[in-house]
Amino acid sequence: MNETIETILKHRSIRQFTDQTLTDEEIRTIVGSAQAASTSSYIQAYTIIGVKDPEKKKKLAELAGNQSYVEHNGHFFVFCADLHRHEKIGEWEGADVVPTLESTEKFMVALIDAALAAQNASLAAESMGLGICYIGGIRNDLEQVSEVLNLPDRVVPLFGLAVGHPAHESDVKPRLPFEAIYHEDGYERDEEKMKDTLKEYDDTISSYYHARTAGKRSDRWSGQMANMLSNRPRMYMKEFVEKKGFNKR
Amino acid sequence: MNETIETILKHRSIRQFTDQTLTDEEIRTIVGSAQAASTSSYIQAYTIIGVKDPEKKKKLAELAGNQSYVEHNGHFFVFCADLHRHEKIGEWEGADVVPTLESTEKFMVALIDAALAAQNASLAAESMGLGICYIGGIRNDLEQVSEVLNLPDRVVPLFGLAVGHPAHESDVKPRLPFEAIYHEDGYERDEEKMKDTLKEYDDTISSYYHARTAGKRSDRWSGQMANMLSNRPRMYMKEFVEKKGFNKR
Repeated sequence: MNETIETILKHRSIRQFTDQTLTDEEIRTIVGSAQAASTSSYIQAYTIIGVKDPEKKKKLAELAGNQSYVEHNGHFFVFCADLHRHEKIGEWEGADVVPTLESTEKFMVALIDAALAAQNASLAAESMGLGICYIGGIRNDLEQVSEVLNLPDRVVPLFGLAVGHPAHESDVKPRLPFEAIYHEDGYERDEEKMKDTLKEYDDTISSYYHARTAGKRSDRWSGQMANMLSNRPRMYMKEFVEKKGFNKR
Repeated sequence: MNETIETILKHRSIRQFTDQTLTDEEIRTIVGSAQAASTSSYIQAYTIIGVKDPEKKKKLAELAGNQSYVEHNGHFFVFCADLHRHEKIGEWEGADVVPTLESTEKFMVALIDAALAAQNASLAAESMGLGICYIGGIRNDLEQVSEVLNLPDRVVPLFGLAVGHPAHESDVKPRLPFEAIYHEDGYERDEEKMKDTLKEYDDTISSYYHARTAGKRSDRWSGQMANMLSNRPRMYMKEFVEKKGFNKR
């Protein structure tokens, strides 16, 4: 196994960091790595906001549901889907680009572009011995996050990425069995097979929690998912992204 | 610079592969790497279809706009947003999960999850000396791609990933300047600055093409974008993803 695959496989989210801030060189390396990712037809439809201002970090931490590691870390990045730049290019080049920018297709392109970049950034950071945690919590209130970051239209924050020197350790969490995620030549539609695979995974997860909490937790993955998906968080999202000029047609 | 960052920075898309197919062990390592990526609240909202059947590969290559490297490669993956599994869990656990599954928020989660996984897969492959190319072209006709792959509802193919042993070399393409992509503490809204940065980048790209085509091409990035975005490809996408149960509310 090579060093890159080793780095990939030992990923675990870090939620406590030392006070040591990232150097500008480290930030440049991480952003440069993000930019090296593939991008759909060269569109590069994202912007990364680095947040250093302590007041802004504090505000973002509150908005993300009081996650302390949004405030306390080595550096905080916000990855945004961005077609604002492309709208301006349309204006300057005299091209009618707006209908395309507003399509669901380009919304998907921007999200995928930003996520590919973010995963490169994460692995670059982890390969340097830093820890990372994705912060979906900023989607709790994108209106206010957009205000804090002074975002124009056609820019939507997707997630944060807290990076820093780890101040705790955590374990690699077991993923779904290979057979559940990977199907060959077509989707495996056999429901009994799916049930069996999930049952096996539920047992794994249950034991995982049991061992790590001295028996206090033993929830199954299926139960977690059913619970989580019974809640209806962030149902404002459709309206919000449309208002920002995405996913409209 | 460590090995991982080196692998990240030397990425270029490979569009010609030798006949050598990937071994099952290589496929497992790539999929395992994909699965190690972060996932929103542990949801793991994606499925990876590996396509080996030559007839299916041929059909997918046609649908993607006759891209030969979709047919001829070491292995072809299709990354899909997948909430089908979660709908079944809702049924089996007696939980009303459908409104959440149909939200734009969960559409975003599934896309981001799948893209993070795909980028891990790509880097794992590249670290093994393989080449990769993302195939957005499968989105030309997702109805037919879904048929070829026998996909149920709540599964949407996002992109392909051709992987294999490189049969040609290509250059690393210059990305937008750091200053364009990375802003600190808020979005850089100064339009004159944006214009200057893009002008500089356009010159870089123009020289890049000029040098590589013996003067036959010298297009600017802005011009490329204006052209591309004047077309309106895949405007069926909104209706399609809604029909599949995503992005509805």
